[in-house]
Amino acid sequence: MSNQETFVAVAMNAWNTHIERAEKLFFNLSKEQLHAEVAPGKNRLIYLWGHFTAVHDAMLPLLGFGPRLYPQLDTPFITSPDKAVADLPPVAELKKFWDDVTRKLSEGLAKLTAEDWLARHNSVSAEDFAKNPLRNRFAILLSRTNHVSYHLGQATLVSK
Amino acid sequence: MSNQETFVAVAMNAWNTHIERAEKLFFNLSKEQLHAEVAPGKNRLIYLWGHFTAVHDAMLPLLGFGPRLYPQLDTPFITSPDKAVADLPPVAELKKFWDDVTRKLSEGLAKLTAEDWLARHNSVSAEDFAKNPLRNRFAILLSRTNHVSYHLGQATLVSK
Repeated sequence: MSNQETFVAVAMNAWNTHIERAEKLFFNLSKEQLHAEVAPGKNRLIYLWGHFTAVHDAMLPLLGFGPRLYPQLDTPFITSPDKAVADLPPVAELKKFWDDVTRKLSEGLAKLTAEDWLARHNSVSAEDFAKNPLRNRFAILLSRTNHVSYHLGQATLVSK
Repeated sequence: MSNQETFVAVAMNAWNTHIERAEKLFFNLSKEQLHAEVAPGKNRLIYLWGHFTAVHDAMLPLLGFGPRLYPQLDTPFITSPDKAVADLPPVAELKKFWDDVTRKLSEGLAKLTAEDWLARHNSVSAEDFAKNPLRNRFAILLSRTNHVSYHLGQATLVSK
C-alpha cells in the first residue's frame, strides 16, 4: 500500500466504523423506540436516521457517483425540522433507502484513486478549487464522518 | 504541496475547525451555563470541556510530543462519570489547562512529516503495528476529531 493509499484507508476505516455504529443502533430499535427524542423536545431517532440517509444520498452527485437515489428525502429530513412533516416513510422503507444509499456510496468510494480523492467535489467551482485545493473529495469524507459522529453522540443519550 | 501533505492538511483543517467550535462554545458560557446538563441526568458542559482537555492531554505522549501536562484530569474527567467527583477545577483553571494542552498539541502536530503521520502511535506495539499499519498517528487525529464532534453534538442540545 502506498503512503497515499494509507491516508485514504485510515479515513475509510473511520467512515465504515461510523456507518456500522449507526446500523447497530438503528437496525435494532423497534418502531416505538425510533420515535424517542434524543432529549426533551429535540430530534427523534427516526429523524436522525432519515437525516443521515438524505445527507449520504446527496454525497452521490457531490462525489461524482451519479444522480441521487432518493431526493424526496430532503423535505422531511433536511429542509424541515423534525415533526414538521407528519408523514415520514415507514421504517421498512427507510431501511431500504439507507441500504441502497450505503451500498451505492460504498461502491463509488471503493473505486476512487488517490488522485480522485484530491480532486474537487462537485459543489465547488474549478475557480474556487484553484484557490482552495482542500475542498476535495477527501474533505467531504471526513466532514460526513464527523457529521455521523455528531448525531450519534446525541442518539446515545436516549435511555435504553 | 505534495499529495501526502494535502491529505494531512484536510484532516488538520477538520481538527482545527472542531477545536475552534469547542472554544466558541465553552469560552462564551458563564459558570452557571457550564453547569447545565446536555439532557436531563446526562453530562454537564463543564464535564465535557474537562473530558476534551484530558483526552487531548493524553494525545501528547500517544503522538510522541512529550509527557502529559495535566494527568490529574483523568480522575475527574475520564475514569469517573460526571458528578462523581465533587471538586472540579475552577473554570479559569480549566481554561488554562485547555489552552496549554491545545497549544502544545498544536505545536507537535505542526511539525509532523507525512512519514511521521503514518508511523505507529505509542499505544500500539511494533509487532501489532506490523499487522495493522492503519494504527498510526493519522488514525488518532481522525478519531479524536470525531470524538470532539460526538460530544459537541450533545453540547448543542443545551437550550440557549
